[in-house]
Amino acid sequence: MNVDSDRLRADIEANAEFGKIDVAEGRGRTVLTGTDANRQAREYFVERLKDAGLDVRIDAVGNVAGRWTPESADPDAAPVAAGSHLDSVPEGGIFDGPLGVYAALESVRAMQDADLEPDRPIDVVSFTEEEGQQFAGGLLGSSVAVGDRTVEEALALEDDDGTTLESALESMGFRGEGRLDASEWDAWFELHVEQSERLVDADVPVGVVTAITGITHCDAVIRGEADHAGATPMDDRTDALAAASEFVLDVERAANEVVAGFSDTAVGTVGKLNVRPNATNVVPGQVETGVDIRDVNYDSMNELVQRARRSLARLERERGVETEFKRPFDLEPSPMTDRARKAAHDAGERAGIETMDLHSGAAHDTQRIAGVTDAALLFAPSKDGISHNPKEWTDWDDCAAAARVMGGAIADLAGAER
Amino acid sequence: MNVDSDRLRADIEANAEFGKIDVAEGRGRTVLTGTDANRQAREYFVERLKDAGLDVRIDAVGNVAGRWTPESADPDAAPVAAGSHLDSVPEGGIFDGPLGVYAALESVRAMQDADLEPDRPIDVVSFTEEEGQQFAGGLLGSSVAVGDRTVEEALALEDDDGTTLESALESMGFRGEGRLDASEWDAWFELHVEQSERLVDADVPVGVVTAITGITHCDAVIRGEADHAGATPMDDRTDALAAASEFVLDVERAANEVVAGFSDTAVGTVGKLNVRPNATNVVPGQVETGVDIRDVNYDSMNELVQRARRSLARLERERGVETEFKRPFDLEPSPMTDRARKAAHDAGERAGIETMDLHSGAAHDTQRIAGVTDAALLFAPSKDGISHNPKEWTDWDDCAAAARVMGGAIADLAGAER
Repeated sequence: MNVDSDRLRADIEANAEFGKIDVAEGRGRTVLTGTDANRQAREYFVERLKDAGLDVRIDAVGNVAGRWTPESADPDAAPVAAGSHLDSVPEGGIFDGPLGVYAALESVRAMQDADLEPDRPIDVVSFTEEEGQQFAGGLLGSSVAVGDRTVEEALALEDDDGTTLESALESMGFRGEGRLDASEWDAWFELHVEQSERLVDADVPVGVVTAITGITHCDAVIRGEADHAGATPMDDRTDALAAASEFVLDVERAANEVVAGFSDTAVGTVGKLNVRPNATNVVPGQVETGVDIRDVNYDSMNELVQRARRSLARLERERGVETEFKRPFDLEPSPMTDRARKAAHDAGERAGIETMDLHSGAAHDTQRIAGVTDAALLFAPSKDGISHNPKEWTDWDDCAAAARVMGGAIADLAGAER
Repeated sequence: MNVDSDRLRADIEANAEFGKIDVAEGRGRTVLTGTDANRQAREYFVERLKDAGLDVRIDAVGNVAGRWTPESADPDAAPVAAGSHLDSVPEGGIFDGPLGVYAALESVRAMQDADLEPDRPIDVVSFTEEEGQQFAGGLLGSSVAVGDRTVEEALALEDDDGTTLESALESMGFRGEGRLDASEWDAWFELHVEQSERLVDADVPVGVVTAITGITHCDAVIRGEADHAGATPMDDRTDALAAASEFVLDVERAANEVVAGFSDTAVGTVGKLNVRPNATNVVPGQVETGVDIRDVNYDSMNELVQRARRSLARLERERGVETEFKRPFDLEPSPMTDRARKAAHDAGERAGIETMDLHSGAAHDTQRIAGVTDAALLFAPSKDGISHNPKEWTDWDDCAAAARVMGGAIADLAGAER
């Protein structure tokens, strides 16, 4: 079997139009759950699934799955599934998510074109809100599919404006029924852009992930006293932004020290910071921050959380601010499954496409799925390692090569004649 | 003459309803140019001017003036004018601005009640957008009234959304004609809350300002590289927020050093900071900051601007970010006029109300007006020195005492029998 590179590219480029943003360099999009852009991306995907003859199902939290049950397959056999997500970060790139969704669909179309006869049905999946911009810390749809969160809990999640996930899904026409159950799958594959430079540096087109880092999101709030920037002497201030600036630098320093000390895969980031009231002539009264901590080593993640807490305690003592700290999202590191990884390496070898092992510094829905069934995560090379940015780029040839490896692995585990 | 404390309070409390915000402690409002709240506040003020028999004029940039021309006055004589502004910072207090506007009106009503017969007309004024939240760095309406900015320049100013001042004024029905000309006034008075604690500490109800600090607003932009917070190793980042955090602390440190060194009235604040894309799981790619620098000493202001520039140059070298720096707003320190100040001290003495000299750390429209006519600025005590905050508070008795001093000074310079 071979994949149709042009067909895969056409789908990714069509999807890139939804939520497209104007940028000087690269191609960007903003696709947040409940927006018109998200509705358009979902509707286009459903049409492509139907065009390929798949049976489409929308579950209660908006996960979309298309099932191919060829005549050769036992319709009651556990399916092999593959996919990713269609949402993006604000001002993100065009490959992060859509590549995996459309490579999964292309895998099925390639099997159909090659008249392969799998024993098992194949599911092509797009999970709701992987990026976690609005309703949860990330991996929302897959958390329901693996039973880590109930449908009711998920639907009741609210964004910053108090809109529930349920009403966001209803507004798009994507609040379906029931629950996609990942534990019923025989195996799961996800193809994603690498988001770092190891494949480019090694000149290898496909990566097979050994383990995905754990991920913790923390919310830290720092409260000072809003006051007039002109009339308040320097020694009479409790400036929440000055305190928050020390916090940002403490988080960065702690991560650098852990990297230098005992775990060179650790990262710590303050990615979000909102100032109130945020006017040039007012001493900031409150700052809210969002912290992201990750590693393949859970001990070093906990160490970074502790250092962030200690930074806040110090700022309370030294600057008189009040602070709050929460850890609303936490996932331990996840090793991938040998059987699924081997199927990917074997498929690469059969196709004459080189593969290599690496770990994933980014979280993916596969991190959840690996807890309930055999799972593998494949990477395609990222130009300059850039992602979550309009400059994110993967060459179309690399997209096709990685899709071909994933298609071969899916066909293998679905019992298709090679 | 005496002022009617209840009438003054009723006006300030009625005005406090426009743009009112819900807060646990204090009384807050958000009144930005062009909003419904701003329109309501302006319409209420116009009605109160008309109720007192004043002739109302709206100029092309939305400045509102009511003129009282009693039979005793030469209608062609240069008027004595007084007033302040009705706009607020986001989540500001109820006295900053409205106290001066309604104390000016109350001064006229008190003169009417006492059958005083001034030789000159008296203007009661509210200037457009003193706080500078949207269309300029501050003191917008008064900048046109003194000729520092033309009507055309002012009307073409745009807010962050690209709305012009002209369309904001038109949407409220407050885009009038002509230009209020402050140079035609014989003298100008403004009453304002002190916004620091010197009057409270001295237990004196009225302050007479000797000089207003200069004020500089700078915009600094720091550009790094937006990237995935999980997949980008610590040593491969150009984090715009980490760089901006150093900048915030550098500005604070520079101000503290100038205070300790040669000018203890200097202040430096980063009050505004916006992160892009501002998502927990994305390394920040760009940060925009707004810096406020003030002192009664212009040299120390320039020193702080230089230190901010040097901080950015260091961050370019050490962190590889790109930076931009602008100084879009700059006013040198302004001494007040002896003649107008003396009228205020004299009025206090006649009324048996203690007054004291102090400087103003906050900018006020009077800073502009002092460039074209004799001007004085009076302060009423601020509880705990807090302003630009719903906890801003001035006791009603202090409001009335300060209004009485201002009314006496206006009557004096307008040539009324005492």
